[in-house]
Amino acid sequence: MSMVIRGGTIVTADLTYKSDILIEDGKIAAIGDNLTGDKVIEADGCYVMPGGIDPHTHMEMPFMGTYSEDDFESGTKAAVAGGTTMVVDFCLPAPNQSLLEALQAWDNKSSKAVCDYSFHMAVTWWSEQVFDEMKTIVQEKGINTFKHFMAYKGALMVDDDEMFASFSRCSELGAMPLVHAENGDVVATLQQKLLAEGNNGPEAHAYSRPVDVEGEACNRAIMIADMANVPLYIVHVSCEPAHEAIRRARANGKRVFGEPLIQHLILDDSEYKNADWDHAARRVMSPPFRSKEHQDGLWNGLASGSLQVVATDHCAFTTEQKRMGVGDFTKIPNGTGGLEDRMPLLWTYGVGTGRLTPNEFVAVTSTNIAKILNIYPRKGAILVGADADLVVWDPKASKTITAKHQQSAIDYNVFEGIEVTGLPRYTLSRGRIAAEEGVVLAKCGDGEFIAREPYPAVNKALSKWKEITSPRKVERSGIPAGV
Amino acid sequence: MSMVIRGGTIVTADLTYKSDILIEDGKIAAIGDNLTGDKVIEADGCYVMPGGIDPHTHMEMPFMGTYSEDDFESGTKAAVAGGTTMVVDFCLPAPNQSLLEALQAWDNKSSKAVCDYSFHMAVTWWSEQVFDEMKTIVQEKGINTFKHFMAYKGALMVDDDEMFASFSRCSELGAMPLVHAENGDVVATLQQKLLAEGNNGPEAHAYSRPVDVEGEACNRAIMIADMANVPLYIVHVSCEPAHEAIRRARANGKRVFGEPLIQHLILDDSEYKNADWDHAARRVMSPPFRSKEHQDGLWNGLASGSLQVVATDHCAFTTEQKRMGVGDFTKIPNGTGGLEDRMPLLWTYGVGTGRLTPNEFVAVTSTNIAKILNIYPRKGAILVGADADLVVWDPKASKTITAKHQQSAIDYNVFEGIEVTGLPRYTLSRGRIAAEEGVVLAKCGDGEFIAREPYPAVNKALSKWKEITSPRKVERSGIPAGV
Amino acid sequence: MSMVIRGGTIVTADLTYKSDILIEDGKIAAIGDNLTGDKVIEADGCYVMPGGIDPHTHMEMPFMGTYSEDDFESGTKAAVAGGTTMVVDFCLPAPNQSLLEALQAWDNKSSKAVCDYSFHMAVTWWSEQVFDEMKTIVQEKGINTFKHFMAYKGALMVDDDEMFASFSRCSELGAMPLVHAENGDVVATLQQKLLAEGNNGPEAHAYSRPVDVEGEACNRAIMIADMANVPLYIVHVSCEPAHEAIRRARANGKRVFGEPLIQHLILDDSEYKNADWDHAARRVMSPPFRSKEHQDGLWNGLASGSLQVVATDHCAFTTEQKRMGVGDFTKIPNGTGGLEDRMPLLWTYGVGTGRLTPNEFVAVTSTNIAKILNIYPRKGAILVGADADLVVWDPKASKTITAKHQQSAIDYNVFEGIEVTGLPRYTLSRGRIAAEEGVVLAKCGDGEFIAREPYPAVNKALSKWKEITSPRKVERSGIPAGV
Amino acid sequence: MSMVIRGGTIVTADLTYKSDILIEDGKIAAIGDNLTGDKVIEADGCYVMPGGIDPHTHMEMPFMGTYSEDDFESGTKAAVAGGTTMVVDFCLPAPNQSLLEALQAWDNKSSKAVCDYSFHMAVTWWSEQVFDEMKTIVQEKGINTFKHFMAYKGALMVDDDEMFASFSRCSELGAMPLVHAENGDVVATLQQKLLAEGNNGPEAHAYSRPVDVEGEACNRAIMIADMANVPLYIVHVSCEPAHEAIRRARANGKRVFGEPLIQHLILDDSEYKNADWDHAARRVMSPPFRSKEHQDGLWNGLASGSLQVVATDHCAFTTEQKRMGVGDFTKIPNGTGGLEDRMPLLWTYGVGTGRLTPNEFVAVTSTNIAKILNIYPRKGAILVGADADLVVWDPKASKTITAKHQQSAIDYNVFEGIEVTGLPRYTLSRGRIAAEEGVVLAKCGDGEFIAREPYPAVNKALSKWKEITSPRKVERSGIPAGV
Ligand SMILES: [Zn+2]
Ligand SMILES: [Zn+2]
Ligand SMILES: [Zn+2]
Ligand SMILES: [Zn+2]
Ligand SMILES: [Zn+2]
Ligand SMILES: [Zn+2]
Ligand SMILES: [Zn+2]
Ligand SMILES: [Zn+2]
Repeated sequence: MSMVIRGGTIVTADLTYKSDILIEDGKIAAIGDNLTGDKVIEADGCYVMPGGIDPHTHMEMPFMGTYSEDDFESGTKAAVAGGTTMVVDFCLPAPNQSLLEALQAWDNKSSKAVCDYSFHMAVTWWSEQVFDEMKTIVQEKGINTFKHFMAYKGALMVDDDEMFASFSRCSELGAMPLVHAENGDVVATLQQKLLAEGNNGPEAHAYSRPVDVEGEACNRAIMIADMANVPLYIVHVSCEPAHEAIRRARANGKRVFGEPLIQHLILDDSEYKNADWDHAARRVMSPPFRSKEHQDGLWNGLASGSLQVVATDHCAFTTEQKRMGVGDFTKIPNGTGGLEDRMPLLWTYGVGTGRLTPNEFVAVTSTNIAKILNIYPRKGAILVGADADLVVWDPKASKTITAKHQQSAIDYNVFEGIEVTGLPRYTLSRGRIAAEEGVVLAKCGDGEFIAREPYPAVNKALSKWKEITSPRKVERSGIPAGV
Repeated sequence: MSMVIRGGTIVTADLTYKSDILIEDGKIAAIGDNLTGDKVIEADGCYVMPGGIDPHTHMEMPFMGTYSEDDFESGTKAAVAGGTTMVVDFCLPAPNQSLLEALQAWDNKSSKAVCDYSFHMAVTWWSEQVFDEMKTIVQEKGINTFKHFMAYKGALMVDDDEMFASFSRCSELGAMPLVHAENGDVVATLQQKLLAEGNNGPEAHAYSRPVDVEGEACNRAIMIADMANVPLYIVHVSCEPAHEAIRRARANGKRVFGEPLIQHLILDDSEYKNADWDHAARRVMSPPFRSKEHQDGLWNGLASGSLQVVATDHCAFTTEQKRMGVGDFTKIPNGTGGLEDRMPLLWTYGVGTGRLTPNEFVAVTSTNIAKILNIYPRKGAILVGADADLVVWDPKASKTITAKHQQSAIDYNVFEGIEVTGLPRYTLSRGRIAAEEGVVLAKCGDGEFIAREPYPAVNKALSKWKEITSPRKVERSGIPAGV
Repeated sequence: MSMVIRGGTIVTADLTYKSDILIEDGKIAAIGDNLTGDKVIEADGCYVMPGGIDPHTHMEMPFMGTYSEDDFESGTKAAVAGGTTMVVDFCLPAPNQSLLEALQAWDNKSSKAVCDYSFHMAVTWWSEQVFDEMKTIVQEKGINTFKHFMAYKGALMVDDDEMFASFSRCSELGAMPLVHAENGDVVATLQQKLLAEGNNGPEAHAYSRPVDVEGEACNRAIMIADMANVPLYIVHVSCEPAHEAIRRARANGKRVFGEPLIQHLILDDSEYKNADWDHAARRVMSPPFRSKEHQDGLWNGLASGSLQVVATDHCAFTTEQKRMGVGDFTKIPNGTGGLEDRMPLLWTYGVGTGRLTPNEFVAVTSTNIAKILNIYPRKGAILVGADADLVVWDPKASKTITAKHQQSAIDYNVFEGIEVTGLPRYTLSRGRIAAEEGVVLAKCGDGEFIAREPYPAVNKALSKWKEITSPRKVERSGIPAGV
Repeated sequence: MSMVIRGGTIVTADLTYKSDILIEDGKIAAIGDNLTGDKVIEADGCYVMPGGIDPHTHMEMPFMGTYSEDDFESGTKAAVAGGTTMVVDFCLPAPNQSLLEALQAWDNKSSKAVCDYSFHMAVTWWSEQVFDEMKTIVQEKGINTFKHFMAYKGALMVDDDEMFASFSRCSELGAMPLVHAENGDVVATLQQKLLAEGNNGPEAHAYSRPVDVEGEACNRAIMIADMANVPLYIVHVSCEPAHEAIRRARANGKRVFGEPLIQHLILDDSEYKNADWDHAARRVMSPPFRSKEHQDGLWNGLASGSLQVVATDHCAFTTEQKRMGVGDFTKIPNGTGGLEDRMPLLWTYGVGTGRLTPNEFVAVTSTNIAKILNIYPRKGAILVGADADLVVWDPKASKTITAKHQQSAIDYNVFEGIEVTGLPRYTLSRGRIAAEEGVVLAKCGDGEFIAREPYPAVNKALSKWKEITSPRKVERSGIPAGV
């Protein structure tokens, strides 16, 4: 069955023009005027944009003996309700666990997804086995990104040696490392110090993770990636010290990408001062929310290109789960939701204010990450042949965000009460209407795994440059005898 | 007559894929496999890219009682020979001359062009007439960019007041100001000081225009554009102080673009120390060549996005013309050639080393400026419906640059002796073969003027943001009586 | 008559130690234990520090047909009451007025001073006469600093050419230029725009002088000083763009000094939003107060050494004078008081919080500027032979600042209601008790003019470096014949 | 016996004036005109300055089974021959060795010193014992500085946790941490990679320690010190990435000091390309020499105050010792000499060119470090009561540096052949002539240990600020029950 989106204005990362779109077999079959098909979707007064891609989610994530509440079903339902048509989740092997075995577990969980998805593989320990399996992951499993945690000491954290080894392996394989950049040693010490001082409330979570602790780790990861001859992607960049490290690296020609979260763009650290323990605890995530001046920096980075992608780090815990940390903030599960709200919020605060053009909105919600992940133009584009992952966006539609009407399984929403203008009228996932006016039509299992090829252009160019500038041995005759 | 480009790999600013291209009526009619047409061009082993756009040329430019030697014929022949299919020249009204009258003169000269072209209008003086004519220029003449010279005191230079007025006018009209950023007062004083000290050789040209003199003007223009609520484009960014000002502005969310020249990317200031006066004088341009570390900065800016466009400032004077400045470097006509060599040089030193990906090459030679000038995707794109301005690029073809075989009318080439790898096999201008293996087939008058619409997306977004953040009056009751 | 200060702890820019001080003939005659003299001042529990030097005051300054209310009597009484024992005022020739003639007028006014003083000479226009008189000013009149206004268009403002000429003249004479750094063209245009939009209240004064307008001018002055081979001193640095320009210059080895005001360190721009017109208008000065983040930057600059001096720009207008600007903010006389409060405020907010050490307090209130002005160690030091300009500082004494008890002749105080801890018990001016517990004992005419020699060490070093790195002519044979 | 230095010009960190100096009992007894004493030293045409302090030496240092060749005798003889009157050496406990036991060993070695000395204690491992002994070291042993190696993996290196613990301990004790800032993990990996690639020559030593590896560690140490509420001193800052991290920290109000070495100011990395293996190997030290642009940065930092101290890291190995690394650069002992040459070189290249004033020369060779180490004004000053550690400096005296005439025990000099202008005529150590015209008169054991008190002003101020800005618990009622 074919479908036509009629009467809309197509907005991509670099074009804005009126045109119809014909969809056949889940792909864009034609772009032009007066197209006809079996079914017609009216897009009058709407923008038609590539569906959003959220490269940073944690569905049903194991954490401190519990699991994040949104699984691949409720999580991806939230996604499509909000205009996002693909998520990339993190496969997290336990220390000493085989990467392949962990991937199997994630494969199982993801079968419920209602929209397309992919995985980043986390490197949470190091061994010859990990070294070997990385090759399989890249060459056989369609994964070209490896996540590294510089925080969560005693759990997911890897040290500099392990990062250097893994980054170097990424370089060989044409893959890209990702990092969660916070100095885990320092966070752990600050946590103990704060608890010892009686600072056990959720605000101490923020105190234990100052901006410079993030900036430091970011700076360190960049150096190691440079030494390992590989591009780098920094997840959840929340503050100017981290952003500054990225800007400085890029100004020196390094290939570094940065991803702010919608939460850090909209919310600030005053939330943790809220007199209601639950209110504050629900907003506990890492890195924590920052002050207004950091927000301004992140917005400027999106407009100027020093930051490329807006994600959510969607990792939803219920209030009851959050209360595991009453009396000890270090036991509050880290994470917030955001998948359903990312695009309306970014549109409202970005395009609605002129901080971003509509094209930049598409770039940072979809196209840039598709390129970085090497799945462009299958995803992130409106081109003939591309997957029909599309959102028909009504720039005049408004709503007030509330947990009452959300797809996410949790009992609150950190954006509760914020009014957004600009909402998806239709979300299409490979040509199927996945959501309409906020009602999710997509079904469990509608989503497919999206494999990603290694060696994107940036990796190839960087390798060439590194080869040309590599250390050269000085030729000497008459070297003395050694001692 | 239709034409097919067969067997090549299409490279655009964001895609690389094998496909044929069908051209009809000067436009791209289809992109796909196994296309057929009346004529076939073989592109095996070649990249097919958007033709280059050089947004900074001066053909037959009046200067100190003479004219730059390349007119629109020889100049655009050099362009197409080197893979460039569109140039933007600067219409330069004399002080007190009507903009419209000056435009008529440029229209006349440009009728000889063998490829498409457009104009930037220079604001070289200020009055109500200029204010009024700017509207006509934008709304009736298809020009959305206005150039301002902060140097050339006593001739083209405008002061801060005039810039502010003109930039504000640009803001109203949805146009964009351009600046030549050097502090003209300081240059003039340094020139006199150097001459007084006996420094009259071509190297003194460089001494009279230090990097900080450019950086200062760049910083000042950025501030004025910000106050005038308008984006800004800095031509011929040659050094780190200027680049740093741009980076700093962008990091603060300002909409500023920067254009390095191929000359500054490849050549350095040691050229002025050459014992041959002619050698040094031929390389006199403003800003002058800089030291190696500034070059590195420019390359890094292209890769990281703080600089967007590579141009030439093609303004070719013969050795004889240059000799007007024997004994007084201030009389050496400012300018060098580069149109024919820009793309092969950038490919060789950029893509050939891994400093740029092939896609970034397309972006900085064509696509980015097409977007900035608001003529994308008619130009700068390989999309159905776009003008068939294309270059079939042979990445293996080599040559040594020499004035002997160049299209330019002058008697030397500042890149003489440099070997380049990567050359156009065919250059197509609106579907016609304009050059083949360096032989120019295009004819006088084949080129057309390309009109450009105002209010690109960046202007609109910036205006919205400026409106939202504009000063708000404090409401007061009980204001005391004045004195 | 000799005097001994007994029992105190001497605090200088680099030492803290308990010792008595013997004073004879207005000078420090001995420093040691158990000194005896005709009179004894008890300093138990007190710090004994060099008296403050305020290098930026405007006594009885002509402005828009009126005069600032504090003359050299009330102004210097405010100084000594607050622990300051020397002020440097600005001699402001009218355009076309002889510098020497203007100096005569300032000499006349200053005869009332109760403590020592000196003058900066302003260069408000340019001519051969000014060029010639600068030599006399330096060599015969004991003035080694020349002030330049980049703002106040149509009145005091000079343009880049004039600045370059005057800075070069300073270089020759071993003098140092000072600048008021705001882009006067832009300020004037913004003023007209704001008035046209109905923004006529005092808050529009701040709107008309954005931080980047100051930053730009600061950056420009730095470049011009560098080209003129002379150190530079930026008065009233109020914001990060200006401070950043200074930091960047210093990081590049330039000899640039920056002076924040106590007002900008303590007060912020929310003052202009006050519903009371008088409240806001009383705080109108240029540059205006800035937001909190700029304050933090200034404090950090004092601690790290990128800023060297804290001044007041004391220029006090009465409420009635301020009301000249009702209905038109551009007519509000620019200026606030601060002389009496500078040192207690800086102590309270600086030393009291640990942002500054006591030694740094002395450095930024006295010693640094004495060195910069080349009057160290006569002033700014506690050394045998130095002038006995001293303050006996009681770090435990407190008061609440209020206009009711101030020395200044005006009817309000912009710091009204702020509690300070740390006050002068005694202020000694050349060995005389000028103030005791806030009661001024000094008399009209007690003050003397302090002559200052040219060619401080920094000027000499810079001249040597500039000579070594000056442009060198390329020697060529066979230069072609000119055209 | 008293002594008078007659006819010289005293130059201190902030004063330049003609005066005689009277010395009694090893201390300055008087400063004034026409002083008389038992013995007279003529200083006509000379500057009299505080003797140099080199805070970074390694005498008889155990390293890879050997010892650095200069012991406290030959090393301090080199010092006084070159105008330096005090050195601070590093006491290096082996892992698991008691700090007190190690100190005993250093005490033993230092008994041979011909001039005064002090120690930094290194923290090379961590335990409750170390924690406890640090208190004894500070409170009983006169040491207020603790060194931390971020490099030398498997030997001296400590990790972030250990640094944080030790820095926090320093904060409590009023001491200051020092760091050798290079990422040891990365260095170790690069070493192995280079050796595996056949890069085994001395140039590979430089390749294995890129500038960003130093910059990263510097940045990390700064963050940890900030979290631990303590000032920080970075030894041997060699490059812009490290310097930039320091500048950035200082611009944010952090109390960070930086120490470039005379080697890095004068020599560059082209030395490692020398065809003579011995030549290159003799220059192997960590960090290695850098390129010219880094040198410029260091010089600018000294002039602008972002760097405070010039040291040598004197650690002299013979050519034979160096040859332990033939065939494997990682086995070349790290270190070069410099003690005798530091002051003449810095005078020649700094004061002689105008990059530094004479006062700045004194500041960076003596006074600043005396203040930082909290031994000012006993050392680093010319004040009555200060130790008579003085150098009578002849600014016209010249020599060519050569190993033939040096005090150091090794067989070469990395500055061989450089001509210096500006040499000590006399060096006085506590009033005794320690060297005269290069001839050392001081004897073994003339030197004494200089104890240093904790809690300098900067520590106290920082602690106050950190207390004021420390995290505050949010008071909440109605906290929910935990899970
Ligand atoms: Zn994370
Ligand atoms: Zn995450
Ligand atoms: Zn130009
Ligand atoms: Zn041009
Ligand atoms: Zn001013
Ligand atoms: Zn003033
Ligand atoms: Zn070291
Ligand atoms: Zn060392």
